[in-house]
Amino acid sequence: MSGNSIGRLFTVTTFGESHGPALGAVVDGCPPGLALTESDLQGDLDRRKPGTSRHTSQRREGDEVRILSGVFEGRTTGAPIGLLIENIDQRSKDYSDISELFRPGHADYTYWQKYGIRDYRGGGRSSARETALRVAAGGIARKYLHEQLGVRIRGWLAALGPIELALQDWDAVDDNPFFCAQPERLGDLESYMDELRRSGDSVGAVVGVLARGLPPGLGEPVFDRLDADIAHALMSINAVRGVEIGDGFASAGQKGTEHRDEITPAGFVTNHAGGTLGGLSTGQDVVARMALKPTSSIRIPGRSVDIHGEPAEVVTTGRHDPCVGIRATPIAEAMLAIVLMDHWLRHRGQNADVDSGTPVIPRQAGD
Amino acid sequence: MSGNSIGRLFTVTTFGESHGPALGAVVDGCPPGLALTESDLQGDLDRRKPGTSRHTSQRREGDEVRILSGVFEGRTTGAPIGLLIENIDQRSKDYSDISELFRPGHADYTYWQKYGIRDYRGGGRSSARETALRVAAGGIARKYLHEQLGVRIRGWLAALGPIELALQDWDAVDDNPFFCAQPERLGDLESYMDELRRSGDSVGAVVGVLARGLPPGLGEPVFDRLDADIAHALMSINAVRGVEIGDGFASAGQKGTEHRDEITPAGFVTNHAGGTLGGLSTGQDVVARMALKPTSSIRIPGRSVDIHGEPAEVVTTGRHDPCVGIRATPIAEAMLAIVLMDHWLRHRGQNADVDSGTPVIPRQAGD
Amino acid sequence: MSGNSIGRLFTVTTFGESHGPALGAVVDGCPPGLALTESDLQGDLDRRKPGTSRHTSQRREGDEVRILSGVFEGRTTGAPIGLLIENIDQRSKDYSDISELFRPGHADYTYWQKYGIRDYRGGGRSSARETALRVAAGGIARKYLHEQLGVRIRGWLAALGPIELALQDWDAVDDNPFFCAQPERLGDLESYMDELRRSGDSVGAVVGVLARGLPPGLGEPVFDRLDADIAHALMSINAVRGVEIGDGFASAGQKGTEHRDEITPAGFVTNHAGGTLGGLSTGQDVVARMALKPTSSIRIPGRSVDIHGEPAEVVTTGRHDPCVGIRATPIAEAMLAIVLMDHWLRHRGQNADVDSGTPVIPRQAGD
Amino acid sequence: MSGNSIGRLFTVTTFGESHGPALGAVVDGCPPGLALTESDLQGDLDRRKPGTSRHTSQRREGDEVRILSGVFEGRTTGAPIGLLIENIDQRSKDYSDISELFRPGHADYTYWQKYGIRDYRGGGRSSARETALRVAAGGIARKYLHEQLGVRIRGWLAALGPIELALQDWDAVDDNPFFCAQPERLGDLESYMDELRRSGDSVGAVVGVLARGLPPGLGEPVFDRLDADIAHALMSINAVRGVEIGDGFASAGQKGTEHRDEITPAGFVTNHAGGTLGGLSTGQDVVARMALKPTSSIRIPGRSVDIHGEPAEVVTTGRHDPCVGIRATPIAEAMLAIVLMDHWLRHRGQNADVDSGTPVIPRQAGD
Repeated sequence: MSGNSIGRLFTVTTFGESHGPALGAVVDGCPPGLALTESDLQGDLDRRKPGTSRHTSQRREGDEVRILSGVFEGRTTGAPIGLLIENIDQRSKDYSDISELFRPGHADYTYWQKYGIRDYRGGGRSSARETALRVAAGGIARKYLHEQLGVRIRGWLAALGPIELALQDWDAVDDNPFFCAQPERLGDLESYMDELRRSGDSVGAVVGVLARGLPPGLGEPVFDRLDADIAHALMSINAVRGVEIGDGFASAGQKGTEHRDEITPAGFVTNHAGGTLGGLSTGQDVVARMALKPTSSIRIPGRSVDIHGEPAEVVTTGRHDPCVGIRATPIAEAMLAIVLMDHWLRHRGQNADVDSGTPVIPRQAGD
Repeated sequence: MSGNSIGRLFTVTTFGESHGPALGAVVDGCPPGLALTESDLQGDLDRRKPGTSRHTSQRREGDEVRILSGVFEGRTTGAPIGLLIENIDQRSKDYSDISELFRPGHADYTYWQKYGIRDYRGGGRSSARETALRVAAGGIARKYLHEQLGVRIRGWLAALGPIELALQDWDAVDDNPFFCAQPERLGDLESYMDELRRSGDSVGAVVGVLARGLPPGLGEPVFDRLDADIAHALMSINAVRGVEIGDGFASAGQKGTEHRDEITPAGFVTNHAGGTLGGLSTGQDVVARMALKPTSSIRIPGRSVDIHGEPAEVVTTGRHDPCVGIRATPIAEAMLAIVLMDHWLRHRGQNADVDSGTPVIPRQAGD
Repeated sequence: MSGNSIGRLFTVTTFGESHGPALGAVVDGCPPGLALTESDLQGDLDRRKPGTSRHTSQRREGDEVRILSGVFEGRTTGAPIGLLIENIDQRSKDYSDISELFRPGHADYTYWQKYGIRDYRGGGRSSARETALRVAAGGIARKYLHEQLGVRIRGWLAALGPIELALQDWDAVDDNPFFCAQPERLGDLESYMDELRRSGDSVGAVVGVLARGLPPGLGEPVFDRLDADIAHALMSINAVRGVEIGDGFASAGQKGTEHRDEITPAGFVTNHAGGTLGGLSTGQDVVARMALKPTSSIRIPGRSVDIHGEPAEVVTTGRHDPCVGIRATPIAEAMLAIVLMDHWLRHRGQNADVDSGTPVIPRQAGD
Repeated sequence: MSGNSIGRLFTVTTFGESHGPALGAVVDGCPPGLALTESDLQGDLDRRKPGTSRHTSQRREGDEVRILSGVFEGRTTGAPIGLLIENIDQRSKDYSDISELFRPGHADYTYWQKYGIRDYRGGGRSSARETALRVAAGGIARKYLHEQLGVRIRGWLAALGPIELALQDWDAVDDNPFFCAQPERLGDLESYMDELRRSGDSVGAVVGVLARGLPPGLGEPVFDRLDADIAHALMSINAVRGVEIGDGFASAGQKGTEHRDEITPAGFVTNHAGGTLGGLSTGQDVVARMALKPTSSIRIPGRSVDIHGEPAEVVTTGRHDPCVGIRATPIAEAMLAIVLMDHWLRHRGQNADVDSGTPVIPRQAGD
């Protein structure tokens, strides 16, 4: 497996390139009996889609997903679910100018060295277009987790460049193109992005994601900890450079008295841990954050070399997001859903004999 | 597999509890022909071992590793390498006081909910003692990577609580008990730790780790990216709450012009990316950092509940590190080595047909 | 993963049901640089296709495969290869008569008990139509093995019911609809099949498969032996009930002096072992045979029960092969190719340091 | 993973060589709460042990297994179970005579070509001694399956060379050194073996194995079928050359009317299928048979070559079983237990939502 699958019992495999005929995914391991139609997945796909505001790429992608298998009379059957998105906006653009060029910050050079061949059209396999399939596959996990366990998963933009954003109002997140949960800052975001776009530069971002309503005990000790698998899943998203759980890097500066979450019969007093202890869920919110680098494709010229090692200047002219972090919110939600789903199936496979009854420590409700 | 294995072609499986008869590991997939004896592994084990200075736990652990298989006449045979460390310091301590107690910040509660049974002696399976086996297994990967590819892997303490530490002098790292690469700060560290120990509290830390001399192209696209697998491996270390590659979280505040690493015929101009692009190694240093939370076992009392949900006070009296981050440096090195080794084997399995010749962009030399 | 993938480095995942919109496969791990077009795969698909003679099902299947990804300018890129076959002959047949019935010898009952829901149209996921994708995926492995290693893989019908067939003439295999390598028996086969078809009954078969030109050393010791993985792959084909390597079950009646393959400087004297020793290839032909049960769908009525446990009579009226074994030959070739390809990649991943030079014992040439 | 692990949720990894310090296994994924001590495993180990009658090797092996982890106060904890068997009978025998020789029928040549180095003492990693650990690990699965699901697993000798043996009396199996279930044939077996031993030759065997009491629905469709995984597991046992399920190779000569197992409200009328349909268990006995080749180590000289390709004569002088098939019965039981256990955990992980109630077709009771 050259790395295009994730999950052990709930396994998602994706394929497809930015400018090939189609992209697809296979979701293997979805339990039978879940009501599922394309429209259940389309909502999240549309949230990820470019072109929904002036702050994201104006590229038009036909993110219409088709379910090819694994569903019968509206319910999953336990068979693998094939998902397909045809590429319809494969503009007959001429990519020959970059066919021999290594764009800084892109995978051009590393793919070239690894494979000796490269589908350079729109980034090929390394294009973020692949994440559309993650969102579709994650939608299945999300629906299951919500309907069967009452788990809710939600993401938000936690920082756009220098602008830090609080998690103030969940309901606001889907009312603005930034996935911003602090509506009073929308004006600042608009101005910042307008300025950025004019400058031809790009900027990084931080995205937060949270799952509420999980039972305690999900995850596995040692290597397949829930937090380690979340770190893997989020870091596998294009442009992500850092992942933290709970207080994350801030924990390094904390004292033990400050960080340890004390417990009373009413529940955990705080949640510095971010919902996991020893790699297993505690029943509190699982909270993670990921940092995304600024888009590498910018209008400002940069130095590079071509496949012969000759110096070259790179200027991007296409339709690119000045901040890829914005559209990453639904992807983070999808990846978290995939990890949690996988761990739920693993957990009950191995621990269904355990009568754990009502959790000793009251957990946060999911709905 | 309930999660005690890591790696696909170079696979490390660990077993054992803090106070059981022994801990062990199986390293499956090591190429044949590598010269290997116990003494090759003991050095790193000793670096991780507690009790080497007054700043770490005074617990004495008999970290003597035995190689049980996979080596014949001093060389690896391609068969799985069994490693064993007997527990000799299983003091007949009475753990009954914590047998029904959930210590805050520990895995007590989550193990209890997951398994309905818990080996409470010294943390059982969740004890950091398990990481000794990671260090031993990682030592095999390190030796191979160094001898066959010229790769050097090194860690350092990047922050101890509020004290940030620069990577100034590699050679100093092994000359002090802090793995500090900025010798002029040793006095500050000593004072800080002495004060901390007196207070009965603990503190977090940041550990950095770096691999130099890698060929470009290691890693797999999409889910099994090199950086995603590093994030997984580091986040699987006890107490780690955050992982970043290259500029990590700082990338979120950067502009594209600042972050993208320009290229000239002489090589990459900068290394904000931390040595990976598109999930594959670039040939530059692979650089990662991880944040560790403060030790949960502290002398200052804290509130908790017992397995019946009744309130209880928790006070730790044992021999504990006031900063677990210090001894985590060799563990981080080991985990990085395991990930790189696995990706090297996968890479050449799938790409050995590619004649990539001399890398187009000169890479950093490893030795 | 609910079991729809095979292979560790060369991984094939299939999806799709007999009467859904499409079936597909993802081939992950194919090395880059292999010349590949749909027409390279179509040949084997046509060999498996029903309706090519009066001795197989007259069902018409549109086995036109499309490559959706992983190929650029006619060469594989190292990215996953998406394959798709649309279902065009989904006759609007009414399957309601079997929707609540468990047909003897079919997976109806076991799927019902496992999943609580069943796509009963044409067997759903348990239909042999799924094997078309295996043939397509296996075609990629075959092409690679042939071009890079000079390996040839060939299957033949070794028995049709009571008629045992010798491996006499390779070149005859593709000249008759039975994959028979003993042309003088074709008349017997025709008569037998005509008689069988008239009777409304079905019959079992044995299929042989062979790989020539392998280097020695492929396979892994202990669990992932080459022969064990071949047994797994062949037994995973619909209707297969037995698998043997080399002399197989006949070995049980042999003496050691008879079975052990002596060696001279000119090579192995015999090949009772079927090309593997200790789970690794010897360089001789790898030879396996598989037994297929008679088709369960026959015109002669049989007793069964429905989903309520009520007795029912089952009579098949559709278009079915009276001997499913005949069309299984290309499937066996495909599965062998997939296993060998996977082991080749694993082998060189872990053993590329070994300079094994010219094999000590001359091996059989592949081409 | 170079192939020393089996199972996905219930994973067994073995390590160790015939003449190294120790052999071991890690059993990862055993559910918590199972009562377990060494004595639960020792019984099966003793059944496999050589030297229990004059018909098996007179070698004395110290098959005393120690549990190193994963058990606390007599119950499994969900943590990996480390198992260890020290090698005590490592006679200081001189193996230098075979150090450069490829014994016919052994893995000597293939290991040499694969690894370029070989632990030649007693077969090294390819020694059947490794199977002791499979028996120990399988004992855990067996105990769980029996206690939790009421499943009984039993093996028997189905043929010794030309002597076919019926499954007549379960209770007789453990009363004789042949695992023979037809006590009236014991005299024939004794005479045949005495004659064989005198001749210096060896002979093959067939071993049957059966699981009774399984619920329907275990297994996964397509590649990870229950029967395919059984074929893999049994074929991975040293010396096995063929595997069949139910009627196996006899199915090839059967008509559909003969083979299909009709169903009445009282249950399946017959069990030609061997307890699986479509790769899933039916609730009937799962029945498999495996063919073992004759021991390769015999006293009668044979031709071979050495590592330089020079001709050489091979004569075995050590203590070897004239029929390795006899002692393979407990190994077959162990492998079947491991496969069933893994599929049980996978099944309930993915299908625990399905309320399948009482099976529609009454199943065979297990106890």
